[in-house]
Formats: sequence, C-alpha cells, structure tokens
Amino acid sequence: MQQRSEETRERILSSALACFAEAGYDATGVAAICQRAGVSKGAFYHHFASKQALFLALLDEWLDAIDGQMATTRTTAASVPEGLTSMASMFGQVFRDASGKLPMMLQFWTQAAKDPLIWEATMAPFRRYHDLFAGIIAAGVAEGSLATTDPPAAARAIVALSVGMLLQGVLDPDATDWAQAADDGVRLLLAGLLRRDT
Amino acid sequence: MQQRSEETRERILSSALACFAEAGYDATGVAAICQRAGVSKGAFYHHFASKQALFLALLDEWLDAIDGQMATTRTTAASVPEGLTSMASMFGQVFRDASGKLPMMLQFWTQAAKDPLIWEATMAPFRRYHDLFAGIIAAGVAEGSLATTDPPAAARAIVALSVGMLLQGVLDPDATDWAQAADDGVRLLLAGLLRRDT
Repeated sequence: MQQRSEETRERILSSALACFAEAGYDATGVAAICQRAGVSKGAFYHHFASKQALFLALLDEWLDAIDGQMATTRTTAASVPEGLTSMASMFGQVFRDASGKLPMMLQFWTQAAKDPLIWEATMAPFRRYHDLFAGIIAAGVAEGSLATTDPPAAARAIVALSVGMLLQGVLDPDATDWAQAADDGVRLLLAGLLRRDT
Repeated sequence: MQQRSEETRERILSSALACFAEAGYDATGVAAICQRAGVSKGAFYHHFASKQALFLALLDEWLDAIDGQMATTRTTAASVPEGLTSMASMFGQVFRDASGKLPMMLQFWTQAAKDPLIWEATMAPFRRYHDLFAGIIAAGVAEGSLATTDPPAAARAIVALSVGMLLQGVLDPDATDWAQAADDGVRLLLAGLLRRDT
C-alpha cells in the first residue's frame, strides 16, 4: 500500500504541475488537479493540506534535484574555485528544469505574501543557498585559494546573481543565452574572490 | 490649461500608486483610481490608454529618477571603477524608492505575460540597463582601468545581481541589509574586472 500511496502522490504532483503550466497557479483549483490526476478530493487532502502545501512540495522536488547535482559537483572538485566553476556550469540544467515553472512561482510569491507561514517556507531556500555558498567560500579561504574577508557577502552576491539571471531568463528568454550568462557571471565573481598572489 | 492637465496626470499617477499598494495591481480597477484621484473616467482615458499603460508610466517615473542619479554619479567620477563604485552606493536610494512597488510589479509581470506589447515595454528597462553598463565597462577597458574581454557579459552580471538583490529585498526584507549587500556584490564583481597589473 505504501508504494501505491507514493504513486498517487506523484500523480497529483505531476497533474498539478501540468494544470499550473496551462492555467496558472491562481486560476487552478484543487478540483481541477484531482480531475486530471483521477483521484478523489479525499486522496488529495490525505497527501497535501492545501494547494499551497502542494506547491511547496513541487518547489522542494525541484530544489532537491538541484541540491543533489550541486553536492556531487562539490565533492568531486579538487579545490573550492574548481567546485564553484563547475557549479556555475550546472546552470544550463537548472534553467531547463525551471522552464515553465517560474511564471507560476511569481504568481505564488504574490499570493504567499498574505500567509506568513507559507511565506517563510518560500523564503527558506534563498537562505539555505546563502548559507551553503557562505560555507563553501569560507572553506576556500581556509584552503588558501580564496581571499575574501566576508564569505556571507560573497555568498549573497552569488545567490542574487543566480536569482536575477533566473528571473530575467524566465521574463525575457530570447534576450540572451541565460545559462551561459549565469556561468559567465559566477566566473566573474569568482575572479574577484581569488587570491591575487597565487 | 497645460499645467492643469499635467497636475491631473500626476494626481492620477499618485492615486494609482496608493491603490496598487493597498489592494494590489490585479484587484485595483480604473474606477477606484478615478474615485481616489477625484477625476472622471474621461479624464483618465485622456491621459492613459489603460491601467497597464498607467503602470508603465509609473515604472518610467521610477526609472527616470534612478537614471538621473546614475548619470550624475557617472559624469562626476574620475574613472570607470570609481564611477561603478559610486553607482553601487546608490542602491540604498533605489531600495527606498522600490519599497512597496515590487510586489505590485510581480503581479504586473504575471499579467503582462498575456500581452506582447506590454511585455516588450516591461522588459525594455532590463535591456537598457544592460546596454548602459556594457558601454561603461567598454569605456573602462578603453581607459585601461578594466580588463575584460566581454563587456556585455560583465554588464549582464551587474544587472542580474541588482535584479536578484531587489527581488530578494522585496520578498525577504529582514534577511539582511540589502542595500549594503548590493553595494558589496557590485564591488566584488568590479574586483573581478579590474586590471591585475595596476
């Protein structure tokens, strides 16, 4: 039964993603998601407390995939600069995964502004990536490859650059190759962080 | 009469801004804006073709103020790095001006996705800032203070970093001092652009 329940959950998630992509987050109701997934409302609410909770689960799935790739990249790199450069090159995949998801996220953010708990959960990934990069940069300073006095500030720059590229890439996809632009941008930040005497 | 017409236009703009801040962009109708401004619908449509056109005028007003400050900063700087550093320090003012405006902008972006002309007008500022910074960085390369082979890529990084800081600053204002973070981030990018041998 555990496996069947997991399958139902996955079917609800993929149906919701399809509904959100077609009609937008705001205009999609729980009824439409249930109909598409072929499940009852009872089954829906067994897995998710609300449409917002389901959205957060979708967000988590997407971020988990990114996290997994980043962790692999990080552990196989010989040094922090090499790891950060490889992570920058991952942006292509992140952009492909984000495709079609961010317009929905804009709607969600606007909505979530009214609910402090959902808001907190939505902001948590930004803070988590900030802490992750601050840790990586501090490790670079410790290994002697990076020269910065303020790892949190550098981490904030990396996260903001990534968020800005993602947002523009979704709003204006044809203006440039955004995956390449993100890659170039992180490399430029990294150049500013490298020790000058090495 | 010209002056009175200009006053009416300004009153409609400031009333719209107040309505959008209170009820959001989506939930605000032209009727509510007219009522608050004390003008007829005829007067409204004399000045603005639609609520969307009015929103774009508000956006332009805000950007014009930023542009004016940036131009002054740029012309009074002795070198391109000094100019970019001073422009980074302007972020505090940009953040104060943006306060309360960006949640509304998120709603607008979501809506504008359905209208190609409005979309184009909304994206134009991003492209304009990109071109502006690409020009400034190319001037830095020409004067010998910056060493980059790709001014457009560096400009894209500056714009993305600013957009990402603004977005996070609006979504999560208490996480850090975002004006300071934006300032630090641009300085870090600049460090990556500086000629190493100077």
